Amino acid sequence: MRDFNFCAPTKILFGKNKVEEIGPEIKAHGTRVLLVYGGGSVKKMGLYDQVVTLLKAQSIFFVELSGVQPNPRITSVRDGVRLCREHNLDFILAIGGGSVIDCAKAIAAGVPYDGDAWDFPMGRAKVVNPLPLGTVLTLAATGTEMNGNAVISNDDVADKRGMGADSLRPKFSVLDPSLTFSVDKWQTAAGTADIMAHIFEQYFTLDKGTFIQDAIAEAILKTCIEYGPRALNRSDDYEARANLMWASSLALNGLTSTAKPEGDWATHQMEHQLSAVNDMTHGAGLAILFPVWMRYVLNEQTAPKLAQMARNVWGVDADDDREAALKGIDAVRQFFNSLGMPSSLTQGGIRRDDIPGMVQKACLFGPIGGFFKLEAKDVEAIYLNAL
Amino acid sequence: MRDFNFCAPTKILFGKNKVEEIGPEIKAHGTRVLLVYGGGSVKKMGLYDQVVTLLKAQSIFFVELSGVQPNPRITSVRDGVRLCREHNLDFILAIGGGSVIDCAKAIAAGVPYDGDAWDFPMGRAKVVNPLPLGTVLTLAATGTEMNGNAVISNDDVADKRGMGADSLRPKFSVLDPSLTFSVDKWQTAAGTADIMAHIFEQYFTLDKGTFIQDAIAEAILKTCIEYGPRALNRSDDYEARANLMWASSLALNGLTSTAKPEGDWATHQMEHQLSAVNDMTHGAGLAILFPVWMRYVLNEQTAPKLAQMARNVWGVDADDDREAALKGIDAVRQFFNSLGMPSSLTQGGIRRDDIPGMVQKACLFGPIGGFFKLEAKDVEAIYLNAL
Repeated sequence: MRDFNFCAPTKILFGKNKVEEIGPEIKAHGTRVLLVYGGGSVKKMGLYDQVVTLLKAQSIFFVELSGVQPNPRITSVRDGVRLCREHNLDFILAIGGGSVIDCAKAIAAGVPYDGDAWDFPMGRAKVVNPLPLGTVLTLAATGTEMNGNAVISNDDVADKRGMGADSLRPKFSVLDPSLTFSVDKWQTAAGTADIMAHIFEQYFTLDKGTFIQDAIAEAILKTCIEYGPRALNRSDDYEARANLMWASSLALNGLTSTAKPEGDWATHQMEHQLSAVNDMTHGAGLAILFPVWMRYVLNEQTAPKLAQMARNVWGVDADDDREAALKGIDAVRQFFNSLGMPSSLTQGGIRRDDIPGMVQKACLFGPIGGFFKLEAKDVEAIYLNAL
Repeated sequence: MRDFNFCAPTKILFGKNKVEEIGPEIKAHGTRVLLVYGGGSVKKMGLYDQVVTLLKAQSIFFVELSGVQPNPRITSVRDGVRLCREHNLDFILAIGGGSVIDCAKAIAAGVPYDGDAWDFPMGRAKVVNPLPLGTVLTLAATGTEMNGNAVISNDDVADKRGMGADSLRPKFSVLDPSLTFSVDKWQTAAGTADIMAHIFEQYFTLDKGTFIQDAIAEAILKTCIEYGPRALNRSDDYEARANLMWASSLALNGLTSTAKPEGDWATHQMEHQLSAVNDMTHGAGLAILFPVWMRYVLNEQTAPKLAQMARNVWGVDADDDREAALKGIDAVRQFFNSLGMPSSLTQGGIRRDDIPGMVQKACLFGPIGGFFKLEAKDVEAIYLNAL
């Protein structure tokens, strides 16, 4: 097991109506708030009104940034930075799903930074002294509610990239599973695929001796397999929503990547290009690509780990690693299909002509992936296999 | 799933020679340190010299409290409180196993408190503004390195009790698996049993819908089953020591008790009386009692959960819950026996005459246990069954 540091200090407030506790949590860090949210869903479900009432009751001044889109745009980030500076704000409260939270993080990083916030995803600037932030989560998917990462899109260059810093971990996150009752089947399925994809990215490495990390990763995968279909079948299944929500946070708060910090992450890098080209739902893109990636990278070196997943998560009974791995990959594809996720790029609206540009952007900084290093030709082959 | 709050902010520095990083970690919180340790083992292994050199190099003033015993005594706590006050110390550094760390926590709580520190375990005082503390762990067992709990013994009244507060969570803990190479077979086995016992106490509740908590608990149990024997077979098996060490922290940092805060904890309460009477190694006492407790509490209501452990952890294949549970309990007993743990109180030096006093103390505050409520007569029966 390799050395690691681990610290996941975000305070989790989990349960029905836990949003009522945000007043003191905010006041521990600030008094002038940027309230960040997306479209009408937080208003429709009454969450917006509830939060506004709570802030007013606590005499917390706030300014609003609304209209943050899925695959949050750098333009929203720039708007948020400007608002924080204009109004001298000292705390950011994000209410929504991963996109809203990611936008809030990029704003938090951008406020004290002299240059343009797109410098963070491009690796041209480091996050220093960001504003503190808190979140009220409405979608179980990205895990951003308990980590310091964000993914931002830039339409000008049709690109989508990650950024991150420990200092961007939310001070608190409210996880109320009942806030996800109104998430539709498509987003519920995509969220489940996203959680599982995060585990895959950290599980599939060539590290040895990480038994406990792997066993916990397998536990989270089994949670998704148990409850993804249940949440699809009955939207207000609290137990299913609760297990998925806690799974989303634990899947990407650093726990399963202790001692294996790099992970693989090639599939995320490839998926980001799908979203950038076609605004594809992130989890749907991952559901298309992951089984194709697993099949492509299967070789003598990677077979044992793929077989381990097949046996421990999907109950595959096969002595031969390659045979077990193939059965496990089939199980992943069948599971994603059963959730109603697409299984080809064509279904996702990507055309063969899009591929060269996607390959170029995915490999902008060289080969990608830790479990199996993908050159541009490999990325192209995976996109073609996924068409 | 029930509501919960979760925050485990202890910074973990995991790996070989991570102790070298303690200087800045201490200085983030204080400059005048109480250095707490036990007997000669930290000196023998060179850790004491290394820490002293590091503190001096960083110009950190320190005073020593040595001689903290296994099952740490309230007398050591009182000595530590006095030293902190006399020398105006503002940070506590514990180097050792769970006993040393627990003693440090009780000292941290006692310094700003006007009364006697035994008031905390007795529930007569709350912990307010304790001194900050850090740890360098030398034994994988109690999990105290990542939580806010401590267990203190009082020879005057032959009693051993727990205390705790979130504010007593260490600011940092150094987990260097190679520091446990010198732990002997007995302590390695007892530590493994202790980790598993912590999981049992949280796993065995009547809560429904805690799939993810249970699956993670099962992952940690499987880690112990994989690596306990390996660490016994080869003392310097780094992979085994590393997995056990991280298991010890994750088993009791709050992760597996989210949404099930009470747990059971009757077996710990019963074991504390063994240690108080005969200074028994904590993990050995737990290894004696747990299978007896499981067998005693097995009924229609508890069988499904005991069967779940049997199937998911021990691979028991039986359709009937009661049958599966019994096979799982046998597997627990056999595993503890295979580690060289005793299986009866008699082997542990407890006599029939000791039982009435132990029953009385175990049930001092009424019935114990959440999975199955044990009255005094039940506790007596379990002690007798374990003789």
